[in-house]
Amino acid sequence: MTETSAAAQPPSGVVDLLGLLAYAELVSFFRLSDAAGLAPDLAAKGELAGVAATEYRHYRMLHERLAALGADPEAAMGPFVEPLDAWHGRTEPRTWLESLVKTYVGDGIAGDFYRTVAEHADADTAEAVRGAVSETERAEAVAVRVRTAVQEDPKLAGPLSLWARRLVGEALSQAQLVAAARPELAALVAQGATGGESGEGGGKGDLAAVSRLFAGLTEAHSARLEAMGLSG
Amino acid sequence: MTETSAAAQPPSGVVDLLGLLAYAELVSFFRLSDAAGLAPDLAAKGELAGVAATEYRHYRMLHERLAALGADPEAAMGPFVEPLDAWHGRTEPRTWLESLVKTYVGDGIAGDFYRTVAEHADADTAEAVRGAVSETERAEAVAVRVRTAVQEDPKLAGPLSLWARRLVGEALSQAQLVAAARPELAALVAQGATGGESGEGGGKGDLAAVSRLFAGLTEAHSARLEAMGLSG
Repeated sequence: MTETSAAAQPPSGVVDLLGLLAYAELVSFFRLSDAAGLAPDLAAKGELAGVAATEYRHYRMLHERLAALGADPEAAMGPFVEPLDAWHGRTEPRTWLESLVKTYVGDGIAGDFYRTVAEHADADTAEAVRGAVSETERAEAVAVRVRTAVQEDPKLAGPLSLWARRLVGEALSQAQLVAAARPELAALVAQGATGGESGEGGGKGDLAAVSRLFAGLTEAHSARLEAMGLSG
Repeated sequence: MTETSAAAQPPSGVVDLLGLLAYAELVSFFRLSDAAGLAPDLAAKGELAGVAATEYRHYRMLHERLAALGADPEAAMGPFVEPLDAWHGRTEPRTWLESLVKTYVGDGIAGDFYRTVAEHADADTAEAVRGAVSETERAEAVAVRVRTAVQEDPKLAGPLSLWARRLVGEALSQAQLVAAARPELAALVAQGATGGESGEGGGKGDLAAVSRLFAGLTEAHSARLEAMGLSG
């Protein structure tokens, strides 16, 4: 509840983006636990718990940043509970590999959003999220795990590629609802995706920019698929 | 995987006790997440995640200690998977308050076991578990939460007391199975409970000592019930 940074008013949309990420980390934390039953052994279960614990640290960091910016963290998260819960509800992994692919894809999208925060938020917030980005990038171990499994059993590539496509498809359809309901957030994120050419904020143009953002996300997603030995 | 302490052979039973606690922390971590759906609001959900993250830190610490003692951490946890899973399976909380009572009771029993480790293990291990004990004792905030709820609605005291009794009853019946299967562990824990008068290890006398241990646990449990404003 320090108010040191509250004086510097965050650009509209930044509080939204921090709230979105905070709830995303919190719900991922709990959802990762659902995958515990799919883990092939105790060591894998322990590693899964480690990934979840990292999500919790990110949640705490975002919660503190929101409070420092003078926002009510729970109020900031509120608008994103329904779309994120819906995404998780529609993408429940049925196998251990599906849960690894979901973790990697989800962390990747979160990483893209963290970078947007880092570009547009105050220096303290940018500094704080930088740690989350670097930890998110440690997820490379997960990609290696999937790639190894696919190399050992190439029949897995087709179903897992399809699964990854569904993960992103469901994310985009939830993102469209969020973008329509939160135009300032959409503007901010679109700005991040297009190097600042959107600008005005809140208008119809931003929804078009959001399409460009989605194109960008899809492109990043293709790179992530490749890292896992899958195809779009 | 350091082997600095591997030279000092741990007393028989210590590896068992560390394995038991390690799996207990790991499974608690995942099981706490199941209670997320019961949380009354986002802030409570966040606090629950914080408790789970602490359990994960304890799990990591125990895992590292087992490796440092030259034990295979997963092998050490193995014998306790079934009884601990069975306990959780028989004690699934149906309300938020039931999950708080379960957390407090479970952490309390874990704390008793940590103290036994601290008494009998090598200095490095004793030092490492001391941190876990002090964090476990921070659970007092949970007791205050339950006590406040019971003061506001005294009708809750009866059903929650019954619930707490069931938690311990189910724990004792699993503990009996474990004690019969792992006599060296039983001897060690009984020794802790009786101030060292059991001693010999592995015989029938230790099973009698285990009964005294259970009496001790039940006594500690009564004190914990009182802290929550409940009765035995």
